[in-house]
Amino acid sequence: MNALSPGLTPVEEVKKISGLEFLKGISEGRFPPPPIAHLLGFTLAEVEEGRALFTGTPDFRFYNPIGSVHGGYIATLLDSCMSCAVHTTAPAGFGYTTVEIKVNFVRAVTDKTGLVRAEGKVINAGKRIGTSEGRLTDAQGRLLAHGTATCLIFPL
Amino acid sequence: MNALSPGLTPVEEVKKISGLEFLKGISEGRFPPPPIAHLLGFTLAEVEEGRALFTGTPDFRFYNPIGSVHGGYIATLLDSCMSCAVHTTAPAGFGYTTVEIKVNFVRAVTDKTGLVRAEGKVINAGKRIGTSEGRLTDAQGRLLAHGTATCLIFPL
Amino acid sequence: MNALSPGLTPVEEVKKISGLEFLKGISEGRFPPPPIAHLLGFTLAEVEEGRALFTGTPDFRFYNPIGSVHGGYIATLLDSCMSCAVHTTAPAGFGYTTVEIKVNFVRAVTDKTGLVRAEGKVINAGKRIGTSEGRLTDAQGRLLAHGTATCLIFPL
Amino acid sequence: MNALSPGLTPVEEVKKISGLEFLKGISEGRFPPPPIAHLLGFTLAEVEEGRALFTGTPDFRFYNPIGSVHGGYIATLLDSCMSCAVHTTAPAGFGYTTVEIKVNFVRAVTDKTGLVRAEGKVINAGKRIGTSEGRLTDAQGRLLAHGTATCLIFPL
Repeated sequence: MNALSPGLTPVEEVKKISGLEFLKGISEGRFPPPPIAHLLGFTLAEVEEGRALFTGTPDFRFYNPIGSVHGGYIATLLDSCMSCAVHTTAPAGFGYTTVEIKVNFVRAVTDKTGLVRAEGKVINAGKRIGTSEGRLTDAQGRLLAHGTATCLIFPL
Repeated sequence: MNALSPGLTPVEEVKKISGLEFLKGISEGRFPPPPIAHLLGFTLAEVEEGRALFTGTPDFRFYNPIGSVHGGYIATLLDSCMSCAVHTTAPAGFGYTTVEIKVNFVRAVTDKTGLVRAEGKVINAGKRIGTSEGRLTDAQGRLLAHGTATCLIFPL
Repeated sequence: MNALSPGLTPVEEVKKISGLEFLKGISEGRFPPPPIAHLLGFTLAEVEEGRALFTGTPDFRFYNPIGSVHGGYIATLLDSCMSCAVHTTAPAGFGYTTVEIKVNFVRAVTDKTGLVRAEGKVINAGKRIGTSEGRLTDAQGRLLAHGTATCLIFPL
Repeated sequence: MNALSPGLTPVEEVKKISGLEFLKGISEGRFPPPPIAHLLGFTLAEVEEGRALFTGTPDFRFYNPIGSVHGGYIATLLDSCMSCAVHTTAPAGFGYTTVEIKVNFVRAVTDKTGLVRAEGKVINAGKRIGTSEGRLTDAQGRLLAHGTATCLIFPL
């Protein structure tokens, strides 16, 4: 659990370490959690080379007008886990940006769904382009949504 | 501007009217704005047959750990405008669900970007499947992100 | 190997059997291979519940103007394996149509690449919507391309 | 019309000219048409800065097993027009590769459809990443399919 106030890590500090070290620093509470994770109540629970897992609990604040959690909340969790999975492959001195994401919504998510897990895994880690896939599941392992992401990796 | 508290409109009421009438009701303040729009501070500014426009102002609360607005905020606005554009084509007694979205991130969005406009337009309105495209632009008309969506339309 | 001339199976015959039985019939040479497979020289090598594998050998006829196999050939193989993977889940009396595909091109494919394998697997088999993923690999198991597909399933 | 035999233009020659000049050379018959265009019978009919139009006539050779033109033929035409639209923005000395495409299939295409037009237009031309959209229509202007593409642009 990350007890720091939400915020950003100075770029100078981020540049010196690999993507994996940076993400581990957030997961282990040595770097602040990002503001969006605080706002939407999700956490980087696990991170290793090529994989990132976020957890959160959808609530009524995230509802769309048609009676379920907005696809944007789901896309936020999947974007997070898929982008961070690629980020774990970036060496020190390299940054990344997410070029595009694609999300399929499989089952409605509601405030009764409970804890959800968004797990991202690298599909291909190239020199300039990295791709990954993500799956959002509930506590029973049911698939709620899935997606893919394409990231650009570049020297900082 | 919608002065009602965020919330949901009862399904029985929604069933009796077309998608366009429902969305106009939200835009004109006769139905409550959805909770997610309240949380993230965006508004359904304009809606007509085949088109929906949302506006919002990105702020620091939406930041990712790498120093810009999280792609999930962008995906939320694009999902909203693209899905609602398709929803405007659904007659009374029909519902819809968004099957998938695809978003390309073109320019970094920050807390200096100012007001953004997410405009969704129907590409094809079929009997069972509707598709749409969306563009997120800043006040100078610069493209920040774009996407497409596929929705399933079905009798309620 | 399918020794029949390329062609179509009469709809009346297709309606009576499940998607899996139909695809096994093509794979085992009891139904004719489709014309496109004849033209581009690819084969449905294996098919089972939730999975389909096509093989082919890219050659110079498929080249784009910039010196490698056209992405369209790659998309054709991935579309085939991903769509057929969903088709295996359709019971007798049900048809399907592919709503959308998404393909990432990872490595250039050339006339030196040799035999390629396009393997599709179902991600989610819903009542109306089925999704799948596909991977195109060479004989050394290197990933050449990957993708996802969304199909609509409906009563014939 | 391009009367040259299908083939490739030597890389040394391609390097010296812009993407637009190269594509005009194919369209006007000064460079050979690519092998895939010969095999599938489609033509680069028009090309200008940010836009490319291909035409072709679907026939029975492109059929899938379920009685219509295979999505791969459609994806090939859309990939062509979307990728070439981005290619027109590449200066001399720069190459490009298509990172990903996304295609929505809207209407069945058959051997009765007649001449189809695949028109690609640039959405955003960045320094490293270019995106485009494409639409496939019949002679009556009906939309058959649409898509988007993401390309990487790099110095040769």
